[in-house]
Amino acid sequence: MNAAVRILLAFLLVLPALAGAGELRGTGSLGVVVERATGSVLIVDTMARRTIGRVEGLGDLSHASAVFSPDQRYAYVFGRDGGLTKVDLLTSSIAKRVVQAGNAIGGAISDDGTLIAVSNYEPGGVRVFAADTLDPVADIAAIGSNGKSSKTVGLVDLPGRRFAFALYDAGEIWVADLSAPETLAIEKLTGVGKLPYDGNVTPDGRHYLAGLFGEDGVVHVDTWQAPLKAERILDRYGRGEEALPVYKMPHLEGWAAVGDRLLLPAVGRHELIAVDARSFTEKGRVATYGQPVFAVARPDGRQAWVNFAHPKNDTIDVVDVQTLKLVHRFAPGPAVLHMEFTPRGNEVWVSVRDADRVDVYDTATFTRKTEIPAQKPSGIFFTARATRIGQ
Amino acid sequence: MNAAVRILLAFLLVLPALAGAGELRGTGSLGVVVERATGSVLIVDTMARRTIGRVEGLGDLSHASAVFSPDQRYAYVFGRDGGLTKVDLLTSSIAKRVVQAGNAIGGAISDDGTLIAVSNYEPGGVRVFAADTLDPVADIAAIGSNGKSSKTVGLVDLPGRRFAFALYDAGEIWVADLSAPETLAIEKLTGVGKLPYDGNVTPDGRHYLAGLFGEDGVVHVDTWQAPLKAERILDRYGRGEEALPVYKMPHLEGWAAVGDRLLLPAVGRHELIAVDARSFTEKGRVATYGQPVFAVARPDGRQAWVNFAHPKNDTIDVVDVQTLKLVHRFAPGPAVLHMEFTPRGNEVWVSVRDADRVDVYDTATFTRKTEIPAQKPSGIFFTARATRIGQ
Repeated sequence: MNAAVRILLAFLLVLPALAGAGELRGTGSLGVVVERATGSVLIVDTMARRTIGRVEGLGDLSHASAVFSPDQRYAYVFGRDGGLTKVDLLTSSIAKRVVQAGNAIGGAISDDGTLIAVSNYEPGGVRVFAADTLDPVADIAAIGSNGKSSKTVGLVDLPGRRFAFALYDAGEIWVADLSAPETLAIEKLTGVGKLPYDGNVTPDGRHYLAGLFGEDGVVHVDTWQAPLKAERILDRYGRGEEALPVYKMPHLEGWAAVGDRLLLPAVGRHELIAVDARSFTEKGRVATYGQPVFAVARPDGRQAWVNFAHPKNDTIDVVDVQTLKLVHRFAPGPAVLHMEFTPRGNEVWVSVRDADRVDVYDTATFTRKTEIPAQKPSGIFFTARATRIGQ
Repeated sequence: MNAAVRILLAFLLVLPALAGAGELRGTGSLGVVVERATGSVLIVDTMARRTIGRVEGLGDLSHASAVFSPDQRYAYVFGRDGGLTKVDLLTSSIAKRVVQAGNAIGGAISDDGTLIAVSNYEPGGVRVFAADTLDPVADIAAIGSNGKSSKTVGLVDLPGRRFAFALYDAGEIWVADLSAPETLAIEKLTGVGKLPYDGNVTPDGRHYLAGLFGEDGVVHVDTWQAPLKAERILDRYGRGEEALPVYKMPHLEGWAAVGDRLLLPAVGRHELIAVDARSFTEKGRVATYGQPVFAVARPDGRQAWVNFAHPKNDTIDVVDVQTLKLVHRFAPGPAVLHMEFTPRGNEVWVSVRDADRVDVYDTATFTRKTEIPAQKPSGIFFTARATRIGQ
């Protein structure tokens, strides 16, 4: 082999690296679809309405969720088994992965994109990692006023490099300020109610709400007030004249916060509850097809799309938020698990788990535009979440 | 040269193309800074807080603005001279450029990202182009009920592939439905008031407001109502006990729509007007340092940042939206023309035209984190706008 050939071959060695580096593309229209049974995620392009990659080896993805880096290149996928995986959407590969706990339930990314926080069941508490390296930054042991370690739930980011979360066992809500991680400051609200099982914050990052599993009601914290105060709202949340069996606790993630009202899924009942976002009092109810799991606002806030617990989980109700009337009811297929809107709301992606597909609907006409094959799809997360407080 | 070498050389020919194709990167944290005097834009990365490219040859960029494709790869820059330029943010190059009119004033992109609409002064009307090719799709001649062609202003996108805009000369507001461009449908509101000079829509795409140059007041259209109706609000908008000289008409673009109130710059006065977003009545005023030009809400809605008309254009006021009190006043430098927040509001970029730089501030502490050299910078636009209705 002569010298020229050897030099050319040396050049060629870099070609696979270039090819493997993925296609040059914008990342604003990308997303991930969780394939729970196979521990994989699909990487999808919402403009092209197709899959551009699959990444495997993410562990147990039951109840998995994802947040995104500010540049919308990386997804941080939170697995149930404590796995935290940084997925490169451009190269369809794992950029970094740590197993940071034995059992976890979602996470959040700080407003500046530098910190990833994970909510843990086992060993409890919240662990915080550097977004670039996934190196540990802080370990928040959730020792409640009862002296015991607690599972944490409802972890969200707040402006100013802060995170809010609830202590399931201890019945507390904490707001942790990591603007200087070495001097972590935590404001603790104790005795907020029994067994907060999920929490979320309004899109402006102001009002944190946690649902209580151990008693009827919801806890509200206005994070703009100092000092913080927990106030009980909706004392009859989920209580009916006659208690119904609860097939699945509804998610507060993905609630419908629209203009000046919130639509919350009722617990154990076939209803949504409309809550006035100024007074936090109930302003009406909507009868739904089943027990709601997610009630997600279309981005313009005019309609909310609602899916339901088993055995009514083949159907979606679309509700007019102003009039609280049902606009449309249809059955996409078996096991409708999640819905994700494109950021300006013209389309919605729906995972139909037991049909092994994701459906894409036009939200103006309710027509199905296409379907995308997926292996037992559950959660769908688009990169536009990177632009939202409490993403 | 033997066959192997020839094949290897053939491979090498594609290398420059790969290299010239730009760096593989996420586009969620990119943006453009308009350099008005030189007809160029800087491409910036808000995570790295630096410039990654400059694109020249965009024509007259006075009052230029930009919108973004859903994948956040392309900026569509609207020049004053009717130029519409599609800029590839990944390769720092012009992907396509047309001069579509003699004199234009901004544009919008449809919610599905397929249509670009441009608001024209000369010859008036609105022209619509395919976002991928910039080929013409529709030409909306703005012939008012007076039979004359009108300049158009305040062009915004609405959900459902619609656009709203005002006819300056005719005093009308039109909503054009381009869900099927071949059967363009326009709903026209006539006699809404004299000389609407700018308009904007609330972040949910519901309430369109236009400011009137020819008389005191603002026109409000609730686009969720059918049929549409124009209603006058704020009848004393801009009128004081004593008329002040108006140095510059304030922009409604970038207004502070926060929770259930709007903060509008008063015309000719050193004030912001707080408007209740349910009743559209005035709820208070805030005294400011000068005549406000932009009043931009920090994304969490807790504060609004305000800049001012010449000769007071060296200063920014930061106002608490709840209490309507001044929180902070400082002078970044000569000719503060525009402010753009990172999507979750932790930082704000400020163009200081006559100092030839863009400053980056931490919004929690008001400290200046860095400065970025730019040639007479004016408008700053980040790709997160692609995720917003009325972007």
